[in-house]
Amino acid sequence: MVSPLKTDLAGPRIDKGLDNIYVKETSICFVDGERGRLLYRGYDIRDLAARSTFEEVVFLLLEGRLPNREELTKTKADLAAGRTLPPFVLRLLRSMPEHMPPMDVLRTAVSYLYNFDPERDDTTRAANQRKARRLVAQFGTVVATYERIRKGQRVLRPDPRLGHAEDFLRMMSGKRPDAVRARMMDVAMILYADHAMNASTFGATVAASTRSDLYSTIIAALSTLKGPLHGGAIEAALRGMEMAATPERAEEYVLATLRNHEVVYGFGHRVYKTYDPRALIQKEFARRLARRASIRTWTSTRGSSSRASGFLRTSSRRCSRSRGSRDGRPRSSNTGRTTGS
Amino acid sequence: MVSPLKTDLAGPRIDKGLDNIYVKETSICFVDGERGRLLYRGYDIRDLAARSTFEEVVFLLLEGRLPNREELTKTKADLAAGRTLPPFVLRLLRSMPEHMPPMDVLRTAVSYLYNFDPERDDTTRAANQRKARRLVAQFGTVVATYERIRKGQRVLRPDPRLGHAEDFLRMMSGKRPDAVRARMMDVAMILYADHAMNASTFGATVAASTRSDLYSTIIAALSTLKGPLHGGAIEAALRGMEMAATPERAEEYVLATLRNHEVVYGFGHRVYKTYDPRALIQKEFARRLARRASIRTWTSTRGSSSRASGFLRTSSRRCSRSRGSRDGRPRSSNTGRTTGS
Repeated sequence: MVSPLKTDLAGPRIDKGLDNIYVKETSICFVDGERGRLLYRGYDIRDLAARSTFEEVVFLLLEGRLPNREELTKTKADLAAGRTLPPFVLRLLRSMPEHMPPMDVLRTAVSYLYNFDPERDDTTRAANQRKARRLVAQFGTVVATYERIRKGQRVLRPDPRLGHAEDFLRMMSGKRPDAVRARMMDVAMILYADHAMNASTFGATVAASTRSDLYSTIIAALSTLKGPLHGGAIEAALRGMEMAATPERAEEYVLATLRNHEVVYGFGHRVYKTYDPRALIQKEFARRLARRASIRTWTSTRGSSSRASGFLRTSSRRCSRSRGSRDGRPRSSNTGRTTGS
Repeated sequence: MVSPLKTDLAGPRIDKGLDNIYVKETSICFVDGERGRLLYRGYDIRDLAARSTFEEVVFLLLEGRLPNREELTKTKADLAAGRTLPPFVLRLLRSMPEHMPPMDVLRTAVSYLYNFDPERDDTTRAANQRKARRLVAQFGTVVATYERIRKGQRVLRPDPRLGHAEDFLRMMSGKRPDAVRARMMDVAMILYADHAMNASTFGATVAASTRSDLYSTIIAALSTLKGPLHGGAIEAALRGMEMAATPERAEEYVLATLRNHEVVYGFGHRVYKTYDPRALIQKEFARRLARRASIRTWTSTRGSSSRASGFLRTSSRRCSRSRGSRDGRPRSSNTGRTTGS
């Protein structure tokens, strides 16, 4: 029998925060922080945002290639069908006490939804692929439904004839968005569909490593995403903007926050050293929306590049794979790193 | 600007499953797989099982030392008060559809409970310590309450005068257990209170690394625990025993399972190479319970050591710290390993 002291003397390597540790190779997503690039399955998100739809990207991420016409129709139909929530879950959402944070509502609803999945106990790869589509579909309905409930508004049923992003906006706002707004939400959903092995995906991987079910792994991801060093940073940034209220009072807000040794959220990114390619597109969208609504609050007051132009139409040209992801080298990003979103 | 190719050429180290990677030192728990020992804060669980109570162990794990009389009284009172569930959560449990697996009920209930914690948005260490006590208390009530509900039995309120293990058994079975049974459950709760950096604790650590709230980290742990390579293995072992039904049919069951290339759960342990110190005590308890109930099913038919004797009385002698955990060396177990429970 080996004494435990020997094991200790062998000197275990301690990697705090798992900095610079890669756990797995992946070809799903590649974050190129130095050059400000984000690739899904080898496709640059700028190309996907310009020429693709969310439904197409869902298929791309799940299957590893872009869908043909028939597969795209099927994916649209799957998402449309999946958007309807079971009555039990609707009842749970209605019974949620006021002021429950939406992230916690989503986590609870997904945990409950597990029980109503028609393939709950089937853990084959094929069943998991179908469950993934259902979960993608249900996420939007849960968020939109709870938003209506907490505002005391009538809950709207999904409309299977609409695209996923358009229907999400309709269920949330109560009216069908115009084509520009619908496309902006479609692009936003494309941009935030994946971000490699960030903290939440790593949390999901840990849960999946025990062969837990798909819902549980997504719940582990949501639990991890919530933290202010990850997805919660977006909420914290919005709160900061609400506190600053107007561009004129921004300086005062920033100085007061720093004086209190608190964090000013919304600036910089752990992984992107030059710029966040998603923010570049979103910034242009925010500016357009603000211009249309004739408001200045929450929009940059400086001039900017017009790089984001061209994202508001979906052309039928196909996207081409970038070379950056075909070299066969590991492209999983650091598990210990939290990429903010 | 550095090209991403250079980063690739630097040769990232890939540690599949994080085998042999330690992420953190910890003095909370030490698993000595070679010698079949398990230490909490330096105390051998055999000593704790013989001389301590679950409430004392809760304090020990959370505070790093055994409580004095006053602190123990306070811990008992905290757990007793925490066992009462908010009416909203009771209503959720009552509305759960039949046949929802208890692990998924617990995960959903904890996710919902978050909203009712009086210190929900306070993430200070002191508040987290109080939340941890509340969660420990609530777990028992959720499990016992759902067990009654799914059997169609009347739900019982917690009795703050009873010890935690005793009250759990009472809420579950509908009658106050005798002293021997209450003590057996108390010891079982002591034995399974912690198991170092196993997969579920690691999942919780990943969630906590983004500064997510305590409930979310526990939900990430539950999501990870569920898998059949971790906590789910216990359920799988029980299912196997149910299928074998009697000792006489065990051989037939094992051979049939192996013939189908399926796993026979309940034998061996990834970390414990000699024996599982918890199983040693539990085995003796199982034998006693079976003898009292005059049943042979699910009990070993061979003779065994009497090592486990003496666990059924709680003496006032204090436990002494084992030397094995004071050497200042990292004693976190492997994050990549799943220890089964």
